[in-house]
Amino acid sequence: MKNISILGSTGSIGMQTLDVIRQNKDKFNVVALAVKSNIDELSSQIKEFKPEVVVVYDENKAIELKRMLSDDVEVLCGMDGLKTISSLENVDIVLTALVGMIGLIPTIEAIKSKKTIALANKETLVTAGELVMNEAKKHEVKIIPVDSEHSAIFQCLNGEDTKCIENITLTASGGPFRGKTKNELLDVTKLQALKHPNWNMGSKITIDSATLMNKGLEVIEARWMFDIDPSDIKVLVHPQSIIHSMVQFIDGSVIAQLGNPDMKLPIQYALSYPDRIENNFERLDLSRIATLTFENPDTDTFPCLKMAYDALKLGGTYCTVLNAANEVLVNEFLNDRIKFYDIPTYISEAMEKHNSIKKPTLEEIIEIDNWTRTFVNNSIK
Amino acid sequence: MKNISILGSTGSIGMQTLDVIRQNKDKFNVVALAVKSNIDELSSQIKEFKPEVVVVYDENKAIELKRMLSDDVEVLCGMDGLKTISSLENVDIVLTALVGMIGLIPTIEAIKSKKTIALANKETLVTAGELVMNEAKKHEVKIIPVDSEHSAIFQCLNGEDTKCIENITLTASGGPFRGKTKNELLDVTKLQALKHPNWNMGSKITIDSATLMNKGLEVIEARWMFDIDPSDIKVLVHPQSIIHSMVQFIDGSVIAQLGNPDMKLPIQYALSYPDRIENNFERLDLSRIATLTFENPDTDTFPCLKMAYDALKLGGTYCTVLNAANEVLVNEFLNDRIKFYDIPTYISEAMEKHNSIKKPTLEEIIEIDNWTRTFVNNSIK
Repeated sequence: MKNISILGSTGSIGMQTLDVIRQNKDKFNVVALAVKSNIDELSSQIKEFKPEVVVVYDENKAIELKRMLSDDVEVLCGMDGLKTISSLENVDIVLTALVGMIGLIPTIEAIKSKKTIALANKETLVTAGELVMNEAKKHEVKIIPVDSEHSAIFQCLNGEDTKCIENITLTASGGPFRGKTKNELLDVTKLQALKHPNWNMGSKITIDSATLMNKGLEVIEARWMFDIDPSDIKVLVHPQSIIHSMVQFIDGSVIAQLGNPDMKLPIQYALSYPDRIENNFERLDLSRIATLTFENPDTDTFPCLKMAYDALKLGGTYCTVLNAANEVLVNEFLNDRIKFYDIPTYISEAMEKHNSIKKPTLEEIIEIDNWTRTFVNNSIK
Repeated sequence: MKNISILGSTGSIGMQTLDVIRQNKDKFNVVALAVKSNIDELSSQIKEFKPEVVVVYDENKAIELKRMLSDDVEVLCGMDGLKTISSLENVDIVLTALVGMIGLIPTIEAIKSKKTIALANKETLVTAGELVMNEAKKHEVKIIPVDSEHSAIFQCLNGEDTKCIENITLTASGGPFRGKTKNELLDVTKLQALKHPNWNMGSKITIDSATLMNKGLEVIEARWMFDIDPSDIKVLVHPQSIIHSMVQFIDGSVIAQLGNPDMKLPIQYALSYPDRIENNFERLDLSRIATLTFENPDTDTFPCLKMAYDALKLGGTYCTVLNAANEVLVNEFLNDRIKFYDIPTYISEAMEKHNSIKKPTLEEIIEIDNWTRTFVNNSIK
């Protein structure tokens, strides 16, 4: 039995994680759940999964929840709450499915407490990849990816010598605007951007998919997670999202992981690793799908992808800025306050203006993150 | 340094094996070479690779070769010669690239001498798979596939628990006659059948690809090599031959191996396993290939594939008969003595007439093989 703490249990990944656990109650036990503010969903999760502790990040909502519940569950709030349930003695795996940079501190807390990390919160590695991976190495902690692309790479590397990697290819659906020109996208709305062709995901990642920033963030995530030189990380547009990613080895052999676009598979794998667990997920039927296509990404129309590579190349705290600016801007786009191409424009401006710090500490990363948010907010006013 | 004995060094696989060794002289050393009769090519191989022993299966040709050579190389002939170089003390790997059932006895000899087997001679496992794998288990010998499909499966299973396999899918190009109807194929010539769309191979396997018997033989080979129930072995037509095969695990995750259609890759892997060796083989470029397609095989037009499954299901010595009959008939087709559909017709007849033996010994397999050849030869007269 593995004891699980889920950070972000009412989001898309969190709900699907509970779905996986629901099917495998003999293997996984929910010890703790954390949400931002959705206490209605959380209280029904409490009823079903009977966690020992829950965290509601929003303090007022936490108080409200306490009133609703009996005494069986401890209710915590804020960052302290997230830190607490990331380091509980009896927890084996912390699944981090918070959205954005907010996941960083609890993840580091979990690493220091030697918990296995099932990482769905890619922004953690984007904003502080080197630092997080160094901590993981120091504490001999395994970081298992939940992102489908990284789960694919992780699975392709099973039994292989990482020294024999020649390069990796992250596949990208291309998002809802694949094939469009820059001119056609000048005035797109959030509703258009939220219509992802293959994946049913949260709103932040769906917008990131539309700008291709999601793939950029994944490139940065992969760079740290697999310790691969950025020039050896390739992106290939594959609209059907069947090949989830692949690894090419030094002999030219390519190993790929395939499956239907269903996040439950990488979630289950992250929880069950190194084992695989039988399930009734729909099986891949390539004869029915019939055709898989591939094309290079269009970085003119989707500059965010190139900006992510640039941030990696520049190093220091450029990725922190890229990530923080993007978080603010996606939120503004979702609130109809900026246009589609304002996202790369303002990110670019923030990157240019910031003073990068080499080998930043956690405090410096948080400081740069804050600076960026303020800078971007001021810029768009 | 690994010492290699190559059975069938002047065939397509043999020549490509020497190509791989030529590029890796610091890693591989040729100790012995065997050919059927092509002593011209063999003598130039002797000059370049300086083996200690060579075998010419044809005795007269062996005598001829001896006259041509200096004393440095020992020249042997016949089955005894093949057995000798399969069990030489200083050999590490025996690469069996003979065509047909003739490879069986030397392979068993190599297994008994605890040599690692790099198996390109699929007929060995088709005619006597259970027996060969039992011997390999008994002598703790590793059998490493050279066939691209089986090499793919082998690579996909790296680091995985074979108990977690749900099924495997062997891909098939579909051969030169994919999409044709039975009527259109009634009068096809060997020249048409020899034009394989993707792979450059020997004539026997190219005809087998045209009838889809090659895929049938591979299904049987996979059944024994990976100890998989025949109902869990699927065949998928994939005309571009880029995905070489794949494994689906019990969680629905699919791992595939991809590459350009170049036999040198699986050959090198079989020799270098468990390592991978850097090379300059052309790299896979999916953005250039752009489209991969998949369809189910047409077993009405290509009955040989279904017959292979039937032979497996029937068990006993049915696969021995299927293989022997096919060897005779492909040879007859290559000599313009029978038509394309005579191949399945006469195989079917031989399978019906034969008295199957459960758990046959090596001697019984050879006997059944001989019976089949005689029976088929008499039938087509």
